[in-house]
Formats: sequence, C-alpha cells, structure tokens
Amino acid sequence: MEPGDAARPGSGRATGAPPPRLLLLPLLPLLLGWGLRVAAAASASSSGAAAEDSSAMEELATEKEAEESHRQDSVSLLTFILLLTLTILTIWLFKHRRVRFLHETGLAMIYGLIVGVILRYGTPATSGRDKSLSCTQEDRAFSTLLVNVSGKFFEYTLKGEISPGKINSVEQNDMLRKVTFDPEVFFNILLPPIIFHAGYSLKKRHFFRNLGSILAYAFLGTAVSCFIIGNLMYGVVKLMKIMGQLSDKFYYTDCLFFGAIISATDPVTVLAIFNELHADVDLYALLFGESVLNDAVAIVLSSSIVAYQPAGLNTHAFDAAAFFKSVGIFLGIFSGSFTMGAVTGVVTALVTKFTKLHCFPLLETALFFLMSWSTFLLAEACGFTGVVAVLFCGITQAHYTYNNLSVESRSRTKQLFEVLHFLAENFIFSYMGLALFTFQKHVFSPIFIIGAFVAIFLGRAAHIYPLSFFLNLGRRHKIGWNFQHMMMFSGLRGAMAFALAIRDTASYARQMMFTTTLLIVFFTVWIIGGGTTPMLSWLNIRVGVEEPSEEDQNEHHWQYFRVGVDPDQDPPPNNDSFQVLQGDGPDSARGNRTKQESAWIFRLWYSFDHNYLKPILTHSGPPLTTTLPAWCGLLARCLTSPQVYDNQEPLREEDSDFILTEGDLTLTYGDSTVTANGSSSSHTASTSLEGSRRTKSSSEEVLERDLGMGDQKVSSRGTRLVFPLEDNA
Amino acid sequence: MEPGDAARPGSGRATGAPPPRLLLLPLLPLLLGWGLRVAAAASASSSGAAAEDSSAMEELATEKEAEESHRQDSVSLLTFILLLTLTILTIWLFKHRRVRFLHETGLAMIYGLIVGVILRYGTPATSGRDKSLSCTQEDRAFSTLLVNVSGKFFEYTLKGEISPGKINSVEQNDMLRKVTFDPEVFFNILLPPIIFHAGYSLKKRHFFRNLGSILAYAFLGTAVSCFIIGNLMYGVVKLMKIMGQLSDKFYYTDCLFFGAIISATDPVTVLAIFNELHADVDLYALLFGESVLNDAVAIVLSSSIVAYQPAGLNTHAFDAAAFFKSVGIFLGIFSGSFTMGAVTGVVTALVTKFTKLHCFPLLETALFFLMSWSTFLLAEACGFTGVVAVLFCGITQAHYTYNNLSVESRSRTKQLFEVLHFLAENFIFSYMGLALFTFQKHVFSPIFIIGAFVAIFLGRAAHIYPLSFFLNLGRRHKIGWNFQHMMMFSGLRGAMAFALAIRDTASYARQMMFTTTLLIVFFTVWIIGGGTTPMLSWLNIRVGVEEPSEEDQNEHHWQYFRVGVDPDQDPPPNNDSFQVLQGDGPDSARGNRTKQESAWIFRLWYSFDHNYLKPILTHSGPPLTTTLPAWCGLLARCLTSPQVYDNQEPLREEDSDFILTEGDLTLTYGDSTVTANGSSSSHTASTSLEGSRRTKSSSEEVLERDLGMGDQKVSSRGTRLVFPLEDNA
Repeated sequence: MEPGDAARPGSGRATGAPPPRLLLLPLLPLLLGWGLRVAAAASASSSGAAAEDSSAMEELATEKEAEESHRQDSVSLLTFILLLTLTILTIWLFKHRRVRFLHETGLAMIYGLIVGVILRYGTPATSGRDKSLSCTQEDRAFSTLLVNVSGKFFEYTLKGEISPGKINSVEQNDMLRKVTFDPEVFFNILLPPIIFHAGYSLKKRHFFRNLGSILAYAFLGTAVSCFIIGNLMYGVVKLMKIMGQLSDKFYYTDCLFFGAIISATDPVTVLAIFNELHADVDLYALLFGESVLNDAVAIVLSSSIVAYQPAGLNTHAFDAAAFFKSVGIFLGIFSGSFTMGAVTGVVTALVTKFTKLHCFPLLETALFFLMSWSTFLLAEACGFTGVVAVLFCGITQAHYTYNNLSVESRSRTKQLFEVLHFLAENFIFSYMGLALFTFQKHVFSPIFIIGAFVAIFLGRAAHIYPLSFFLNLGRRHKIGWNFQHMMMFSGLRGAMAFALAIRDTASYARQMMFTTTLLIVFFTVWIIGGGTTPMLSWLNIRVGVEEPSEEDQNEHHWQYFRVGVDPDQDPPPNNDSFQVLQGDGPDSARGNRTKQESAWIFRLWYSFDHNYLKPILTHSGPPLTTTLPAWCGLLARCLTSPQVYDNQEPLREEDSDFILTEGDLTLTYGDSTVTANGSSSSHTASTSLEGSRRTKSSSEEVLERDLGMGDQKVSSRGTRLVFPLEDNA
Repeated sequence: MEPGDAARPGSGRATGAPPPRLLLLPLLPLLLGWGLRVAAAASASSSGAAAEDSSAMEELATEKEAEESHRQDSVSLLTFILLLTLTILTIWLFKHRRVRFLHETGLAMIYGLIVGVILRYGTPATSGRDKSLSCTQEDRAFSTLLVNVSGKFFEYTLKGEISPGKINSVEQNDMLRKVTFDPEVFFNILLPPIIFHAGYSLKKRHFFRNLGSILAYAFLGTAVSCFIIGNLMYGVVKLMKIMGQLSDKFYYTDCLFFGAIISATDPVTVLAIFNELHADVDLYALLFGESVLNDAVAIVLSSSIVAYQPAGLNTHAFDAAAFFKSVGIFLGIFSGSFTMGAVTGVVTALVTKFTKLHCFPLLETALFFLMSWSTFLLAEACGFTGVVAVLFCGITQAHYTYNNLSVESRSRTKQLFEVLHFLAENFIFSYMGLALFTFQKHVFSPIFIIGAFVAIFLGRAAHIYPLSFFLNLGRRHKIGWNFQHMMMFSGLRGAMAFALAIRDTASYARQMMFTTTLLIVFFTVWIIGGGTTPMLSWLNIRVGVEEPSEEDQNEHHWQYFRVGVDPDQDPPPNNDSFQVLQGDGPDSARGNRTKQESAWIFRLWYSFDHNYLKPILTHSGPPLTTTLPAWCGLLARCLTSPQVYDNQEPLREEDSDFILTEGDLTLTYGDSTVTANGSSSSHTASTSLEGSRRTKSSSEEVLERDLGMGDQKVSSRGTRLVFPLEDNA
C-alpha cells in the first residue's frame, strides 16, 4: 500500500482504544439489518500487502485492531442469532406441548432481558475512549473534518453532539455499544417486511366486509386515543412538576407525541391465539384491520405532531396556522403514501399480467420482491412514509398481483415474506428485552409510568366503547359487548410503538417516553398475551369458527369448540354476532346486513373494482368489452386478457372476497335478472390457493353452472351485480 | 429537544454541504446490503419537536438537509432496484424467445454500464465539500475526535486518510459517491448467499463421483494458475517499468495476489446454459465443483499472500519463514473454515433430527436460515473465512439436514436461497457495470490488461491440460479432449474475482488490478457466455442427457438432442463419457469404474458416513444398533431415531447419491450376502423433492421389497455395503 494515497485509517493510537476502521461494522449486520453507530471508511485499504517500510509495523497493529473489531461485531450479531435460535426452539417446545400462555414475542423479550442483564452486569466496563483532540478555534461544527497530522490528512465525519457532562460517561462499555443499533434500522429494515406481510396476508373478505368499522377504529379511534392519552399525560407531567419529579422540560407536544406513538396497537399475541383457535373471523378482522391501519395512522400522526412547530419564537403555544399545517401534513403524507403503495402494486399487477413471467417463478418472485421494496424507497424518496406505502402496496399486491402469479410464486412470495416477517418481528422483540438493560439513557419515572398505564387504559376505553356504540347504530351486524370487551382487552403495544419511541431519544422527555413505552410493551405482551385464552373463554367468544379462506383451505380437520365450554352447548341468545356468522340468524337479518354493510361508497368502489380494475389488472372479472362503453372497444380488447374468456369461472371466485358470500344478491346475468338468496352460501365461496381444490357452491357459481358455461354469448356478457337496496328476501 | 443533551448533529453549516446526519444511509440500503461510506449518528435526534428558541431555525435547516440526504439514498438505491427489475424483464423476454447468447448476468452488466455512463456524464459534479477545519497540533490521528465548538462538544469518527493532492478532487460528485458501496459489502452480504446456495444446490451424486478430480482441479489447479499468472504478470510489470508505463510501485506479491484473485473462476453463464440444455452431467459436475471450490481456495490463497509479510524491513524479498507461515495460514484458515461450516451443519442436522420442528415449517426454515448465517459469523468471529465456512455449511446442510426437514421446509429453504442468490448475483453484476464508470480511481493500463488476458489464458491452459492428463492416468472414465477444451473455455471470471479485487483499492497496484479484473469479467462473461452454445455443438458435447436428480424429477418432458446435430445420430465412438452415463457401455467398464473412482479414502469415508454419520444425523441409514459395537448399545439406541426402523425404505434413497446408482455393488443384507448387478439401476435411484413421487427400482430397494419390510429382524439389521475391490460383474 502506498502511504499518502487514498484512505488509510489512523494508525498508532492508544492501546485499548476502539479500533479506527470500523468499515466492517455496518456491513456484516445488515442481512438482518443492523446499523451500528459507526463510520464506514470508504475505500479504506483492508490489508495492504505492500507497505512503506517505516509504517509496516504500525499498519499491522492497525489491522489487528480492525480485525478485533470485526470479530466483536460478529460476536455481538451472533448473540442475537443465538437468541433467536433459542427462541425458536423454545417456541417449538411450547407449540409442541400446546402451551399458549406465552407467545414467541414474549419469549423473545424474556431471552433478550436475560442476555441484557448478562451484558450489563457481566462484562467489564471498558473505558475505551481515545485521548481526545480539542479544536476550539471555530464556532460551528462541520459534517466533515480534515485533520492535518504531521503532514498527513485524515478525514473525520461528524457523529453527533455530546453534552459536556457526559463526555466521560457515555458508551464506556464496548460490548453494550456493540449491541446497540441505530434506531432507524427498525424503521427502514425491520418494520417494512412486517408491515408488508400484514398487508399481503390480510384476509380480504372479512377485512373488506368490516371496512367501515375498521377505518373508524383506525382513524377516529387512534386520533381520539392519541389526544386523550396526550392530555392525560400532560396532567401527569404537571403533577410531576409540582412534585419536583421532573428534572427537565416536558412540553405539551411531547405528551401528544407520546399519545401518538403509544396509540399504535399491535395485538400480535392475541391474533396468533385467534389464528390458532380459529376464533371469530369478524372479530379477528376488526382487530387485525385496526392494528394494521392504526400503525400507519400512528406513524403519520406522530410525524405530523413533530411537524407542529409554530414558526415564531414561542414554540409551545397553540398556533392555528401550524395546527392546520400539521393536519395538512397528515393528510398529505397519508394520501401520498397510500398512492405510492397502490401505484406500485398496480404496476406490478400490470407487469405480471402482460408478460408471461409466470413461466419463470424465480424471476417472478424476484420481480415481486423488488417492486414491493421499491415502493418503500419511492415513498421515502418522495418524502412520504415508506412503511405506510408498503402496507398499501401489500394490500394491492394481494388483491390484484396475487391473481396473476404462478402457483409456485404465490407460495414462494407468501413464504418469503412470512419468514422475513417472523425473523424481523422476533428480532425486534428480543432487542426490546435487551434494550431494557443495555440502553444507556433510561429515565425511569414511576409516576409517569403509572400515569401512562392508566392513560392507555382510559384512552383505549374512550375509543372502543363510544365508537362501537356509534358504529352499532349503523351496523346491522352489531359489535357485541363481548367483542367490545375483547377489543378493549387486546390493546397491546408492540413493535411499532417501540420503533417510534426509539427513533428519537435525544431529549429527557423522549428518554422517559422510551422507557415507559418499553415497560408498556413488556407488560401488555406478557399479561394480555397470557390472558387471551382465559379471556376468550370468559367472554364466551366462540372459537373454532369455520373459515374456508385461502390459507385455511387445507386445514379442514379442526373442530368446533369453545375454550372451556362444552362445544355442543347452545350459543347464548343475546350473542347475535356469531349467529349471523354461523348462518342460523333470520333471513331478514342477513338481507339487511348486506345493505347496511355495503355503504354506497363501498358499493360504488366495489362495482368499479369488479368491472374495471380487476379486468384491467388481472386475468379475472368480466371482460372489459362488456363493461366499458362501446367506443372504447379497441382499448378494451387490448386490455382484456384472453384468459378472461376462458377462465371466467374459476377466477371469478376471487371476487367473492367481497360481498358475494353474504347471502342475498341480485345478479344480472346475461339478460335475465335473478335474485339468489343463498341461504347455504355464507361459508362456501372461497379461493383455493392451489387452484385445484375449489369448492364451487356459492349461489353465483351454481347459477353459472345452471346457465351452462358452454354458452359463449352469455359468458362473454359477464356478470353485473346489482346490490339490493331494499330487503328482497 | 433539549440542547446540550445527547447527540445532536452539527447545526449551522455552509449551504450546499453534504448533510451532517447521514444516519439513514447505512440503513435503508441494507436489505440487499449496501454500505455507503458514511457515518451513522448514534442516537441522533431525528426530528425534535421542542427546540430551544434560538436554535429552532438552525435545526430545521439541519433536518431538511438530513431529509434531502435520505431522499438521495433512496433514489440511488431505487436506481439499482429499477436496474434489476429491467434485467428481470429483459431476461424473461430472452428466455421467452429462447435467446441464449446473453445471460442475465451479462445483461445486468450492460444495464449497469448504461446507468454508469448516465451517472458519470449526466449528473453535475457538485463540489459538495465543507469548508474544512484543520488541526495541526497533534502528531497522530485518533479514531474519535471531540471538537469543542463554542462550548458544545461534537464527536467525530475517523473516516480515513486522504492523500494531500486529492483533498479537493475526491468525491466531488455526490451522486457518484452515493452509488459507491463499501467494498466489504460484497464479502459480507452479497457473497454468502451466493456461495451458500452453490453448496446447498450441489448435485451431490455427480459431485462426489468426481470428487477426486474436482479437488485436484480446485486445489492444485488454482495454485498452479495463481503462480503462473503471478509470474507472467510480474514479467509484464517488469516490461512496463522498462517502458516507463508504471507510475508507482508494483511488487511481486502484488502480482501473486492478482494471480490468486483472478484464478477464481465463476462459469455462471456456462452452467446456466448447461442446466438449460441438460448437458453432460459429469462435465457439469466437474465445472461446477471446480468453480465452487476454487472460489474458496482463491479467497484463502489471497489472504495467505497478503499475510506473506516478511517480518523485517525488506518487505518484498523471499523469506522462507514468512513463506511457510503463509502456507500454514492457508492450511489453518481453510481447515478452520471447513470445520466451522461442517460443525454448524451437523448441529443443525442434530437439532432438526431430535426436535419435532418439522411440524412447524416456518420455525424450521427460520432456524435453518439463522444457523446457516451463524456459520458465517462464527467463522468471522474466530478469524476464519466466513464465505468458505458458508460453502461447507451448505454442503453439509444439503447432505444431512435436508433429509430431516419437512417437505415444505425443503422447498422453502431451496426457494429462499435461490431468490437470495439470484438477487445478490445480479446485483453484483449490475454493480460491476456501474463501477466501470462510477469508480473514481481506475488505472487503465493497456499493456497490463493485454498481459492479463494472455496470462489467464495460459494459466488456465497450464492447469487444465496437464492436470487432466494426470487425472486420466488414474480415471477409468477419462476426461475426453472435448471435455478438456470445454473446461479450458469455461474459465470465466465473475463475482468472486470482482469481490476480491474491490476489497482493497488503496494502492496504485491494486487499482490497476481492479480495473483489469473488471474488464476481464466483462469480456469473459460476454464472449464466453455468448459462445457456449456454439462451443458445445462444435465440441460434440451431448446435451439433453437425462439426469433424474432431485431437482429434475419433475421435468421429464425434455428430449435428447444435440445442439445443431441430429438427435438420432450415434454418439462418436471415442466419447466414452456418456456411453457410461447412458448405460450402454460394456459391463466391465462399469465395474472398473466403480472401483477406480471410489478411491480407498473415499470408500472409507463413504462407509463411515453411511454407517455412522447418516444414522446419527438423519433419519436414514442403517440403525446404529447394527453398525456400532455392542458395548455402545445404549448410546446407539438413543441416537437412532425410530423412523430408521419404519422408514428405512424411502430414506435410504438418499444414500444412492453416492455409489449405489453405479451398477455393481455387494450388499450384506441380513445374513445373506448378495451381489446385485443392477444393469437397469443407473438412472433410477432418485430422491423425490415432494416425498410422494418416488421411483423405487434401485437394486437395493427391489431386494428390500423381496425380503419383506414386515420382517422386523431383517429390517433392524439394516444394510451393510461391501464395495467390490475386484471386478465381479
């Protein structure tokens, strides 16, 4: 290596000092995403063969240190991997023994805690800081610093500001520093696969059936919860100030920010148990849909609150202009991210439709992965929120692109994102456990913590019960008290709250929030997770509900049972929720229900989606030649894939995700209008993952078979749905 | 945010300067692995809500800059993703139209080149460097710098040394800097999945059948090639010195290093075409095995050459001690990495065997992934080479763990690593294209480049032909001239050579090597890749050879044909290679062949593997109770899984990967020794991926069925193989 050429890391430093060339740090860890807080030397030489004679020894020492550092990184990452391995094995044992009181995320946290304790108290606190160089001649800090050391220039990059009191205290323990990530890792690496998987694995049918309620819970509910928690916490902070417990500033906007981050519920443990016990599908859809969307709302809400910075000098007073600007930011970011996600999904759908990529599943999967990832980057590049975009991209991909994929790619993409989601989620939770002991700036404030627990309880109550009351006014299919209690109970906080809290821990207020969030996550995951099964039984929520959806098609061998209750026992008469689900409610109820739950805007969207979007973006739906006006004939023929004419029958099943399953519907089929009251159809319309084991007994399909698929004229006219505006049962 | 508390990035800097807080840089890109050369501010505040009144404006400006930087990162990563997407779509088109002259890697390079040209000449050269601060009072550089700026302390980390002449010239173009990775990314992120996949997808049967030859080519061949290329290049360098073309030092060790990195062949394009055309399996095995192993050899060789640093002052003279130290390092690193990989594989096999993890494919896949990754970290942590460890881990996993996995996990793991491999490989190749224009320190030396092309040609010739001659002395199944020419022709250089070359580009010599390597990769991939199909036809190498291996089980619908040759034409009489493969050679040839190719060490290993390792690590093989001595009875019973007794028949098929397929074998079954000359068995022993479509007609299985599986006494004795030491056909 030639001296004086290109980057050579500083040689000859005090022994025991942290190694200078940490270029390996940000690399190794990255497969799972790990952004240690260190600089990467650009084209730094790693192991120069030829060195100046005089500097050879010096360089060797440098190299040894770099190697040492690289080893330490490997060891610390290995710690996490072993932790996850241990979690997987224990979880297997739990699943094997059907232990349900502790979810894998809870377990990951426990193991994280144990390793955190060991690292904290078991490793020596090496005070490995270099003798510092002080330059006091300038009045501003630069991002890049060139230092001339006896004729050689060294380049330094700014790491951050250090408060004067902490110069000698921060980051003394090398090992603790190694296991601390850059907080943005969570947002940019670990959350996207989790959120994408949530969108991609959404059980569309039940989600869209309860869309109105889900949107209400997610948007109104999160906003209400945020403001209630924010205000309650401001009261707590005032109290603390009076009691002299507050050692630094804590503003109203901080409280609101706390309200926003802690409003992101993540009932992962509850949903896992629901899935395992096949609990009520509508309740599942409500909880899952709410938690998925309120993550998005919470992110955007928190960044809007951060953006609420009144222009003038008085930063913490109310300012109408700034407030409306924040509201505008909220709407802008949310709709922008939504658009980005939807557009990328649509582009992927078009690409997979119009190329014959499905002959090469590997290419198809790779394309799917890259396109989904590019959503995130696109949204971030445009200043929107990548995580939110990824969510809507996932939903779009599941709704359109999924239909165009080959059978192999369908399972590949599902499995790929399932594995990524699993690893990322457990990684976050085990890191949470670790962070309780290794994070060096905790601010434990008992009053704040107790206040926060009370506030989140009240915030959740103030959002679930009133909203459910109002929704029940409009819903025919009421959300019963037991469902409301279950939703109230399922207010766990998880990965999203943590990621939002750790993102900024610079100020005293944020540190206190972070510590509190961590404790809230711990206790909600452990206590609520452990209490789900008893709670389901106590609230008389039926489990083992049959739901022949895409995923469950293959698992028809489980039985109806209720936790702790005789499976043959009659359902309580006032519990109308699952009466309807079970198909034993009165016919009129079902008729009304279709009407009530399909609000006009939703019906409009549905017919638009069914008549135009599905045929354009997928191989399913009615041919565009029948749905578009005559003058678009050429375009319609170009956009309609030949499969539509051939495959109308199997592919139309996808549509049944929407409403076709819900009993009454009026079909305009060919020229004859038929009213089909499918009293046996509520559970039967289903989409088979394999494309081979289809149950074909929804009213529409029966109809279709009666009319005869051979009749090309009828087939090519397609179906047009007319929704009943009045009961016609 | 409270001022003076924790990390706050330097505020108030010159406009147009690179943003101070690049904490997002190393994060975003990481999913695919991307280590931009920038510092990550640790717990830097990202968007403080409350700021000191005086610093609010300043902070806002800082935030905007950080956002801007984050956007630029997203855009540059997006560039790569779009590039890959474009590659995928074009490749689909090529595959669709059966165009074989350009492989996806070659295409990725072309697109990379185009984008590189655009970035280089299409973007303005922003001179975005801060006004620099010079501190000249110390005589050594520190890794951490504390700078006191008007009372506030800022922490800086060392990025590297800059040569005085380049202070104003390096990294002027922001965009070019953004698309340049940390070179270690290749080694630590992109290569491991590629190499692991190579090991995991190894077609064991043909690999092990040609193991001796493969090891000879990989070890001796690579060493020979390295020394020949090194010496030739030293001649070229001497010539350049005489001609005054050399502007800086270029030592003999540099030449050897170049020989090592350029000896890593990567015939990815050739193998892809072989795969597609189902070319001769033995030739495939030789090429694939050689390229996989010589990557490992080249890595270790290059680090041994780097380690060859004579202790004294005269760094570049021959030093026997240093030489032997280097040899020792080579052996140590290689065997250490091998052990690491094998041990992790064995541990995974044991875990998957003794837990019932296969009931939960997600957990199983996650565990498999984590364990395989931990090999890499473990090896790096112990100072060995992670990439080499990962290779052997992949082979071990395929040989043992794969048998224990559930059917779903088998396809999941295969598919997962296939996707990762595909993405990583194309990413590297497209980056190579980009690097030709965006890398800022190219040293183009026409003489060196021409010399290198000649040297790699001669190096390859000097390694293939003599080695094949010596191998043919020992091989019954000769490596024909056409095979030798094809191997000679297939000396492409690819990802590994590039990754080794870019790892260190600090010195003049290394920069010249890097540029030359890049050009060699380009031309070999394009020209040889394009010429493979004509070459196969020209060399009369039969394609469309049936090979009912694990992967190809499902694709039996292709036909025998030779490129450009009438498929019905008789094979040339001197081409005995596929005569044996086709099962139409004389019986004696086959008998001899088994003897010749199963050298005693291999037979020893095989019987050890079959009798002890397979039963211990998997559910297959004979029960340990029969193979271990009587006094180990208890241990044997503990280690033998109950499935061995039940599932002997289907699982023993795995063993046929070794030798059972090759005609003659002597079975000691029960108490009766049977010599089975399975003339129809050469293509029939196979392992079905699905576990359902098994062809059960190898001689051993027929035998088994005859003896009756119900006879527990015979079954529990298991099989013991006696290899024919003399022809007994």
